[in-house]
Formats: sequence, C-alpha cells, structure tokens
Amino acid sequence: MHPIAQRVLDGDIRAVARACRLADDRLDGHVDLLKDLFPHTGKAWIVGITGNPGAGKSTLTDRLVEHWRATGHRIAVVAVDPTSPFSGGAILGDRIRMQRHFEDPEVFIRSLATRGALGGLSRSASDVVRVLDAWGADVVIVETVGVGQDELEITRTAHTTVVVMAPGMGDGVQAIKAGIMECADVFAVNKADRDGADATVRDLELMLALGQGVMASGPGHVGAKVSAPAQGKLDGAWVPPIVRTVSTQNKGVGDLVARLEEHRKWLANTAEGQARTRRRAREQLHNEIRDALVEEAIRDMGREIDAIASRVIQREVDPYTACDAVIAAFRGRGRAMVGEGV
Amino acid sequence: MHPIAQRVLDGDIRAVARACRLADDRLDGHVDLLKDLFPHTGKAWIVGITGNPGAGKSTLTDRLVEHWRATGHRIAVVAVDPTSPFSGGAILGDRIRMQRHFEDPEVFIRSLATRGALGGLSRSASDVVRVLDAWGADVVIVETVGVGQDELEITRTAHTTVVVMAPGMGDGVQAIKAGIMECADVFAVNKADRDGADATVRDLELMLALGQGVMASGPGHVGAKVSAPAQGKLDGAWVPPIVRTVSTQNKGVGDLVARLEEHRKWLANTAEGQARTRRRAREQLHNEIRDALVEEAIRDMGREIDAIASRVIQREVDPYTACDAVIAAFRGRGRAMVGEGV
Repeated sequence: MHPIAQRVLDGDIRAVARACRLADDRLDGHVDLLKDLFPHTGKAWIVGITGNPGAGKSTLTDRLVEHWRATGHRIAVVAVDPTSPFSGGAILGDRIRMQRHFEDPEVFIRSLATRGALGGLSRSASDVVRVLDAWGADVVIVETVGVGQDELEITRTAHTTVVVMAPGMGDGVQAIKAGIMECADVFAVNKADRDGADATVRDLELMLALGQGVMASGPGHVGAKVSAPAQGKLDGAWVPPIVRTVSTQNKGVGDLVARLEEHRKWLANTAEGQARTRRRAREQLHNEIRDALVEEAIRDMGREIDAIASRVIQREVDPYTACDAVIAAFRGRGRAMVGEGV
Repeated sequence: MHPIAQRVLDGDIRAVARACRLADDRLDGHVDLLKDLFPHTGKAWIVGITGNPGAGKSTLTDRLVEHWRATGHRIAVVAVDPTSPFSGGAILGDRIRMQRHFEDPEVFIRSLATRGALGGLSRSASDVVRVLDAWGADVVIVETVGVGQDELEITRTAHTTVVVMAPGMGDGVQAIKAGIMECADVFAVNKADRDGADATVRDLELMLALGQGVMASGPGHVGAKVSAPAQGKLDGAWVPPIVRTVSTQNKGVGDLVARLEEHRKWLANTAEGQARTRRRAREQLHNEIRDALVEEAIRDMGREIDAIASRVIQREVDPYTACDAVIAAFRGRGRAMVGEGV
C-alpha cells in the first residue's frame, strides 16, 4: 500500500492534504495512491454548487458547511476556479475560507486552480474528491466559480447539484447556460430579499415548464405537466425544486438542505435515480479514459508532434494527414511516417 | 480530388454549404475533402467575436459584415452556439441573420450548434473555417455566443479577436473570464451611449494596466507601463486597444475596423506577431490531434469501454486500472486485459 494511503484512511489531515496535492499535481505515485484509496470510496455524498459569478455561491457553501457541521458530519469542500493565474481567485478564496474553519478538524477545504488546456481540471477534481471520500467525509461539496465547460463537467461528477442564481444579474435566467440548467437538481434563488427575486423564480418556473416539453426525451425531466411542474418528487422523474435563500442572513438554508436530502433519497430509492447514478459513473469513466489517453499521447509523442507541427506550419503537410500519422505512430504502427515524408 | 472540392474552389455556394455540412457532421469522406481544400487555405483573415451574452455581438458582427461588404470583400460568418438544443439558439440566430444577407452571394453564414462531450465543436469550427477560406472568403468572422471553455478554444483559432462588452452587465469586467481577457486583441465597449460606459472603459484600462504586471511573462502582453498602457502598437508587443461602439446606430464601427486591421498588420509585420501566429498554429494542431485521438479511441474501443465501465460501476475494478487497460488495448497491447480479469 502507498505510504500515504493508510494515513489518509486513519484520518490524518496532513496526509489528506498531501494526497490531494499529489493527485492535483499528478506527481509520481499518485495513481498507485488513488488505486489504494479507491476501495474505501463510494460512501461520501458529493454535492455540486454552481452558478454565475456574483450569485453568492461561496457564502451559501459556507452556510451548508455550518449546517452539516452542526449535525455532526465530516465535511470537505473542493473549490474549483478554472480561471487563469491572472485572477488569483483560487488562492485568495482558499485563504478567506480557511480562516473560518481553520480550527475544525472535521472540515477540510481544498482549492483547485486552473490546469493546462487538456481538460485535466475535472480529472484533478474527481481524484481529489476520491481522496476526501476515502478520508471519511460524509459530504464533499464541489463548488465551481462559473458555468463554463470545465465546471459543467465537474458538476456532473456530483450526486446532487445546486444551481445558485441571484436576482438582477444581467440577463438573469438567460445568462445561465442551458448546459448548466440541465444538470441542476435544485435551484437556489439566493439574495431572495432583493428586488427581482419573484421574477427570477417565475422565470425559472417558466423555463422548467417549457423544458419539460422540449426535453421530454431527456432523463430526469420527463413526466411533468407544462403548466405546473411538480417539484422534487420522491418517485419517478425528478423535477428540480426552487428554493429561496438569503445566505448572508442564513435564511432558507434548512429548506435547501431538506431539498438536497430529498434528492439524495430519490437517487438511492428510485429506478430513475439509480439509472442516473450508473449513467453518470459511465460518463465519468469516459472522461477519465479520454484525459488519460491524451496525457499518454502527449507524453509519448511530444517530439513527433513538435516535428510534424513545424511541417504543418510550413504547409508541407495538411493537419489531417498529420493527425493520422501521429495517431498511427502512437498506436505502434508506422512511427517512421511522422519523421519521414508522410 | 473529392467531387465537391473543385466546386468549392470554383465558388459554388451550394457546394460550400454542402462541404460545411460534411465537415460539421463529420460524414464519410469529409477528411478527404478537407485534405483537398487545405492547399487552397491560408488566405482568409479570421476574426473572432466573443463576449458575454447580451453584449451585442450579433449586431456588431452584422455591422462588420456590412462594412467589409461595402469595401468589396467576400465575407463568411461562422456563428458558434455551444448551448444545448434546449435553447435552440443557433438555429434561430441563423434564420434571423440569413434573412438580411440572403440575396448577397458574397456573404455566407453558417451556424454551428453543440456537439457531444468530446470537444468536437472547436474541430468542427476550424474545419468549417477552412472550407470558407478555400471558397475564397477574404474575412471569416467566427462569432461565439458566450465565454466558456469551448468558445475560448474556438476564439484562439482566430487571427484577431474582439471581446465585446456592454456597460451595466452584472459584474461588468469581473464577469468576463480571465481566459477570454487573455485572448482579446481588441476590446469593443458596445452600447457606449449607455450609462456606465465610461466606468467599463476605465475598468478595462485598469485591468490591462494590472495585467501588464501580472502577466509580464505572457506573450503579447509584455513591455507596457503599468500606469498607462500604450494601445495597439505596430511594432513590439501588442496591447489591446479599447474602442467604443454603438452597433445599433453604426457608431464606432469604422474605428473598430481600423484597430482590427492594425492588429492584422502587427501579426504580419512584427517578429512578435509572427511568433504568435506560429504558436497558435501549433496549439491548434495539438487540439486537432487530441480530438482525433479521442474520436478514434471511442470508435475502436467502444465495446471494451462499455464492458469495463460496468465493472467499474460494480466496483470490481478501479477506474485507474480501467484506464490503463483500455489505453493498452487501444495501443495494440494486451487487448485481452480489458475483457478478462484485468
């Protein structure tokens, strides 16, 4: 067993921090560590928090941590900030958050900042979540700063996802990407004491009602009436409930938690919920295979790719032929092609 | 030669539409077609238009088309809408735009909607851009609806990118992702007749000034002073100029075009610009290799991936071992591993 693995399983928080760093930075031995931890995962409830910047996700996350700590749970937070070093968002956020829960050994918070162009961020996120699951977190909250493609993929690794909205944010509901809407299990209309909260709730209700029709074939969105969607049923299809919160005043958080736990029960106890869990697991494995494949290709074929890129830039070779050649070489056939005349 | 290739090169607009469809849907023979067209590409100027929803990108694109048509150029527009079928954005936008320029044989407009999860959208976009380049478009405008990861990657295929902002959009400058800021060659503050335009310009100036410091090592952002960034120099480093526009009234569009053309000259005539062009071409090839690799793996290994995914879901195998096994099989080694005990 990897030397750190047993310490993580024993609840050593320094070992957890070290394991997260190994996984995030993809250092030597991290795969062995993750293989050792995997049999001890699968117990944590993974809750995603997403939504546009400014909706109040961090404060709401903080309230959820507070709530679940009060009921005696062990909590981990993974804050994902796929922006550039330019913003420094992840590091700053980490510090602010750490201060509040710094003394609590049952709360572990980890920020993940941007990766390279190869989609490694979602892999880092799911590996770090597995470390925290193995550590024994009852709930792992995965909070993303925005609603981009990376964040969408990360959110899809959660069991239950909250999309947080706030009134009066530019285009309101329209500004939220359709993709993120489809992965919402619960909507939180935060800052619900502000003007426009009713309008935001109405817009969401309308959108959900329309969505039932348009997405009739989509899983998790079938069976509700267009005029008045039933929210958060415990059997059959799940229709995302809408909860009003004022996280700065700790209002509506209990209601939000109740809806989240209802969704967790739906996942566990209905055929639809179980099917969704399997589908998500399958998608996640697809993503992991994709990322591992690309990483291995870049590692093994870097020199060949550089060489043929220069020839494409000189227009000696077209990019389609170049792709074919690199992939053939990667698969152990015709490595000479890349170097030679193609 | 592919039967459609010659017709595209002859300027047959129906053949162009057919070639775009072949490339976008990745139908049989599309790679042969693209190989045939490639030697005839490299002449078009590719201009990216991006920015948050509601900033007025479509209207501004329309004005640019109008401007360049008036100066006798052949124009193509690729409108990329990586949202779900739920929004129907791409199709709707296509129709509205087509009406306006429907009669003009020197304008070709194509919308690209969402692809699957495999990052195929940016590949479709760059293939479609190549078709339009081979057709003889002088300018290909690539307009994206948002600022997500997909759009960012697409924008990076452009020679010159305009980031469009509007006053009073929620968090303003903060709401624009840092990633998109870094690929801005020119900023257009659109709706500049509205309250808050001065503040948006000031915020951008401040951000650019700060960015010079933080991103001192980043290409295209070096060498300017923190207090007062010089904008759009013709030699040395490029600092993105800020242009005010009111696209609905056709104000500032001539100024915007002048700045875009300055950037084009900078790319062609400076060592920094040429280096950037080479770097972008190299990145693009990396992305194409990545996408082609993943596509081939899914095609060839679909059955094996499904089989091992079921075993991962049953927790008989950990996902890391599963990835190793699938990749080894893809590379022609140990195919039996996947089916057997791993």
